[in-house]
Amino acid sequence: MSKAKKIGILTGGGDCPGLNAVIRAVVKRAVSRLGWEVYGIRDAFNGLLSSPIRVESLNRDSVRGILTRGGTILGTTNRGDPFHFPLQSPDGTVTYHDRSGELVEALRILEIEGLIVIGGDGTMKIADRLMREKGIKVVGVPKTIDNDIAATDVTFGFNTAVEVATDAIDRLHSTAESHDRVMVVEVMGRDCGWIALHSGIAGGADVILIPEIPYDIKVICDKVRRRQAAGRRFSIVVVAEGAKPKGQDASFIDKKPKSGMPRLGGAAQRVAEGIAHETGMETRVTVLGHLLRGGGPSGYDRLLATRYGSAAVGLVKKGSWGRMVALRGTQVKSVPIGEAIHDQKKVDPSDEVVETAQEMGIEFGG
Amino acid sequence: MSKAKKIGILTGGGDCPGLNAVIRAVVKRAVSRLGWEVYGIRDAFNGLLSSPIRVESLNRDSVRGILTRGGTILGTTNRGDPFHFPLQSPDGTVTYHDRSGELVEALRILEIEGLIVIGGDGTMKIADRLMREKGIKVVGVPKTIDNDIAATDVTFGFNTAVEVATDAIDRLHSTAESHDRVMVVEVMGRDCGWIALHSGIAGGADVILIPEIPYDIKVICDKVRRRQAAGRRFSIVVVAEGAKPKGQDASFIDKKPKSGMPRLGGAAQRVAEGIAHETGMETRVTVLGHLLRGGGPSGYDRLLATRYGSAAVGLVKKGSWGRMVALRGTQVKSVPIGEAIHDQKKVDPSDEVVETAQEMGIEFGG
Amino acid sequence: MSKAKKIGILTGGGDCPGLNAVIRAVVKRAVSRLGWEVYGIRDAFNGLLSSPIRVESLNRDSVRGILTRGGTILGTTNRGDPFHFPLQSPDGTVTYHDRSGELVEALRILEIEGLIVIGGDGTMKIADRLMREKGIKVVGVPKTIDNDIAATDVTFGFNTAVEVATDAIDRLHSTAESHDRVMVVEVMGRDCGWIALHSGIAGGADVILIPEIPYDIKVICDKVRRRQAAGRRFSIVVVAEGAKPKGQDASFIDKKPKSGMPRLGGAAQRVAEGIAHETGMETRVTVLGHLLRGGGPSGYDRLLATRYGSAAVGLVKKGSWGRMVALRGTQVKSVPIGEAIHDQKKVDPSDEVVETAQEMGIEFGG
Amino acid sequence: MSKAKKIGILTGGGDCPGLNAVIRAVVKRAVSRLGWEVYGIRDAFNGLLSSPIRVESLNRDSVRGILTRGGTILGTTNRGDPFHFPLQSPDGTVTYHDRSGELVEALRILEIEGLIVIGGDGTMKIADRLMREKGIKVVGVPKTIDNDIAATDVTFGFNTAVEVATDAIDRLHSTAESHDRVMVVEVMGRDCGWIALHSGIAGGADVILIPEIPYDIKVICDKVRRRQAAGRRFSIVVVAEGAKPKGQDASFIDKKPKSGMPRLGGAAQRVAEGIAHETGMETRVTVLGHLLRGGGPSGYDRLLATRYGSAAVGLVKKGSWGRMVALRGTQVKSVPIGEAIHDQKKVDPSDEVVETAQEMGIEFGG
Repeated sequence: MSKAKKIGILTGGGDCPGLNAVIRAVVKRAVSRLGWEVYGIRDAFNGLLSSPIRVESLNRDSVRGILTRGGTILGTTNRGDPFHFPLQSPDGTVTYHDRSGELVEALRILEIEGLIVIGGDGTMKIADRLMREKGIKVVGVPKTIDNDIAATDVTFGFNTAVEVATDAIDRLHSTAESHDRVMVVEVMGRDCGWIALHSGIAGGADVILIPEIPYDIKVICDKVRRRQAAGRRFSIVVVAEGAKPKGQDASFIDKKPKSGMPRLGGAAQRVAEGIAHETGMETRVTVLGHLLRGGGPSGYDRLLATRYGSAAVGLVKKGSWGRMVALRGTQVKSVPIGEAIHDQKKVDPSDEVVETAQEMGIEFGG
Repeated sequence: MSKAKKIGILTGGGDCPGLNAVIRAVVKRAVSRLGWEVYGIRDAFNGLLSSPIRVESLNRDSVRGILTRGGTILGTTNRGDPFHFPLQSPDGTVTYHDRSGELVEALRILEIEGLIVIGGDGTMKIADRLMREKGIKVVGVPKTIDNDIAATDVTFGFNTAVEVATDAIDRLHSTAESHDRVMVVEVMGRDCGWIALHSGIAGGADVILIPEIPYDIKVICDKVRRRQAAGRRFSIVVVAEGAKPKGQDASFIDKKPKSGMPRLGGAAQRVAEGIAHETGMETRVTVLGHLLRGGGPSGYDRLLATRYGSAAVGLVKKGSWGRMVALRGTQVKSVPIGEAIHDQKKVDPSDEVVETAQEMGIEFGG
Repeated sequence: MSKAKKIGILTGGGDCPGLNAVIRAVVKRAVSRLGWEVYGIRDAFNGLLSSPIRVESLNRDSVRGILTRGGTILGTTNRGDPFHFPLQSPDGTVTYHDRSGELVEALRILEIEGLIVIGGDGTMKIADRLMREKGIKVVGVPKTIDNDIAATDVTFGFNTAVEVATDAIDRLHSTAESHDRVMVVEVMGRDCGWIALHSGIAGGADVILIPEIPYDIKVICDKVRRRQAAGRRFSIVVVAEGAKPKGQDASFIDKKPKSGMPRLGGAAQRVAEGIAHETGMETRVTVLGHLLRGGGPSGYDRLLATRYGSAAVGLVKKGSWGRMVALRGTQVKSVPIGEAIHDQKKVDPSDEVVETAQEMGIEFGG
Repeated sequence: MSKAKKIGILTGGGDCPGLNAVIRAVVKRAVSRLGWEVYGIRDAFNGLLSSPIRVESLNRDSVRGILTRGGTILGTTNRGDPFHFPLQSPDGTVTYHDRSGELVEALRILEIEGLIVIGGDGTMKIADRLMREKGIKVVGVPKTIDNDIAATDVTFGFNTAVEVATDAIDRLHSTAESHDRVMVVEVMGRDCGWIALHSGIAGGADVILIPEIPYDIKVICDKVRRRQAAGRRFSIVVVAEGAKPKGQDASFIDKKPKSGMPRLGGAAQRVAEGIAHETGMETRVTVLGHLLRGGGPSGYDRLLATRYGSAAVGLVKKGSWGRMVALRGTQVKSVPIGEAIHDQKKVDPSDEVVETAQEMGIEFGG
């Protein structure tokens, strides 16, 4: 009797609504339909480098009920590049080591033919290198809540994040209006402003600040004052966390202080202080941060993630290693991982969506 | 001083989350940015055929706060084709009249240059005919909660409907599981199964029945029994209202009985009775109907509707009459109205999304 | 070493959001804090009468993640009174048997000291009888989504049902308004109108029909016409499933036809047909049914259910068998089960909440 | 013909979901049912002290559609005690003046018989003083999102805040679990921990910190470590904004810095830093702040607010000036305003709800 095909699956980088839906789809198709074995690897690549190895065989029961759940049952991490693996010595100093050989060996022992790797930019770069340098077979599933991968029209998790942000902006509207306040709300988006752009238009924001369009605080304040002059004594400002004033880079935002705890709402705080100082109006800051990343996926994201997971198994079945699934128009296709990782999808200031926002009277401050 | 450009706007057919967002976008861009006048016409074309004419000039205040609201501030109706207008005589008999000439005259008197017409198949056909036969200038915005217009990848309202349906399926899951029941839930979709397909996958349904794939009740019951044998003593069946058994057309569904009130949940009821009869299991029916159509739009639909509204004004501005806005991939484009109305987008049983569902073990009963 | 105290827990009757939260609270306090053993009994009392017995020892892992989940991990049923247990003979005839002795024996074998019984009226009557006639120790936790138990101010699940119903009424509002329709929405409440009353006021209904106030269809139509005359061309009618016209009992509603499938929306359908017939207006029916019962509990219900579960263990700990937990004002207290079961809490037509509704212009049709 | 009775209505203090529902109920009953005139006064008492006076006659149209909307159509403010009214001179210095006489005069000119005052502690104190010292007739409606008024069991807005906070905690759960993090979430509650207590239990928090129980950071860290030792590598900490460490008052929280912008999440930040420092675990802070206050009210709050509004008119009708509406058990009653304002309802550390939390294993850190 021939042995069952064995593949591994892992999730890397920050969590994102829909990860579990991908895992479930992979297991449903690979195990229930095709009779393969699927090994879930804990905490990105780390599970293969631990002693003992942290992997578990996944079956129908493992994925029961997870379609609607946020997070990832496999755990995830941003740390643990096998080519540059951090090891802490007893005196606290951290050194980095190439442990990719151990990873190859772990896969050999487990008789895993190849990996389905769900992750963002960083994870895909590791996958690509593992493939090129170590001959490990991989299929990729793109994951970025920021929707900033050029190779695909949309990534799962983004829709959920936009909906949660839009709901929050709706809530802030009524309190802004009742108190004649400027509400500044910060959403995710360190390098790309997609979440701010979409939720800002959907939430009827007055100002949207994104990393791609450095802002002039005076232009923002002019907008706020024009609204006041027209009898609209409140304003809603949506700020991506990477938004920055003109003539400055974002390095002033102390993202990773030594304490390990990022400063809360640096970009929004700066904007709010600027508006308060220039206009004398009451301003209030809300930072949505982890609320956008956590929680169950929307129906849209559950469907997209399910399609991605199923398509990834389809690629493995056809032996199309080295490819990443991607949505193009209404269809899931695939692209070479190597190409996918080189191209970040930033907001183009002349894009139709930005223009739409401008036609709605939304100020970008540029 | 030259007079301001004047355009009219109307909504036709069944209501749909996002209609108000389109209206708002049109007014914001046309009135606030371009200085035009926008006349809102009541109840589709009917407002132009009433005496007195029911139109109102729309401004910023008219559209304040409507981005998040369901329905349409202009009212809408399925009845009132100007070429075939129903008139009821005192004895109750209804006769039909061509009143398109009155409509032309009304627009002339109001000095309206052209119309932005938001509507589905039926409304677009009227618009197309008004254009071809009467020389009325129109720009179209597609509206169908069923997402069944081939000319565009997505229509607003569809996402909201899928999300509401998915939420409902989630709720039914827990009660099905606790009581070992088969829950049959009916969603909209007389001719096309998109809502059933998307919400069924997103909600983790076990069976999805759509008009495009006539079902065999025995195949459905086999699925339910196989689940029982595997210890899953409940099932979720999502049924489009136009789903029909093999070898029958849907005419058995008495959609418009004389009383004027459609029979409730005909398709779901028939499926539930079939399953109860064949398997002896407890079945329960839920009909979502108007819950999917009413209510505020999702963030996704607000954005799409806003882009459509803004783009429609853009077409008018360029003088591109006779075209309809459409989403292609990630961009809003335009297509000729005449082409758009001939092509309904049905679910192709070999489509990747249907295949994904099948790989997830979902039964279509065909 | 003394053996751990052992108790059983079961859920009876229809499911209700919050059941799992009660189970979790019982296990957390009894097992984790007090070191007892807790046996979960499947499908109400049936688990003790099956062969083999269907019970499972519950621990922290059994209840992980269930706080937010609807339904009940123990399963539930409306059938299986141990004193009157249905048995089907091979020819299909059903006979009833007193199997309470077997139940006593099962508890003895399992060394279960007593039961925490979560259920409604019917379940509590069985519990009371088991206690009086068979000496079985029980503590009760009231469960009724209809909130119709006089002994407690509120029961869990009711708040969730009212919120879901209110959301649905909100959705129907916009579609009613856009189409000039009368929307008739049916909510649960066979004997008591609490859900209809609360959700109707919260949703801004125009008419509320409850079992406690038989209605005159002409009075309802007058209200609808008065609204039309005042320019409000739509109306929202909230109907409890047990609402009935004056001079009739509700027996015309064929609740349990032979097929085993209740007729859908009998009460709402009748009202809608009456209004359509009298006023000629378009009416549409929506039946919320199982949507109110399924799904995750609101925060309010999670808290209440948790307090109930913890308090039930407190009663067992003090040896206060024969009592049922109850909310009085802001505090959880306890009452004798025997008293609790005799008193159904109906809506009093002169209650302050009904009066409030009337002051809001809401018509009860009485 | 006798002139219609005239009353005024205003909202004071921070906004709160349900304010509009109270206003709507007052207008519906007073205007539509009783034929009175109701004047809406802008921005708490300020509308009566402006020149020109900012009041508007409210009718059915004024309150249409506001039942579901957050905020207050009348505007509100925390500043503007008529007995101690701030006036800014051109050089920026602020002086305070007794303008209560002007207020009396404004009411006399408007022929307003008395006021329905919706507000919290501060607003009620002003109302009480206006009544005692100036003979102004008032009826009070309690408003505090913190639920900290002893005279009533519940205030509207609190339920909405708890539900929004519970939803947020749910979202953070999945991200905490996937990343092995400690998520610290701050909710409102400067003096009282009700929101933290209720949402913390409902959301399944591991630690709840409230102003009434000063915490020891070491006790919190012990809890986090015990969870880790048991394989639960994440924790959820819910912190009221007024939570403080033992032996310190909360004055270290710089609530109102000169810039006018409060520091974001002071209490949560301090706790998170403490945990990160003691345990070395990754911690993340989320501040819900204004999200809890803004947005539409839950069905529960809409009902309660409607009952309050109607009951307030009932008090005016009976001439029961000087009283405040209040919920006691299941009924709306009334209490003297003077008594109501003296008694803040803090969380009693021996309360049954706190005990329930402790039985669930929740740590208060005290």
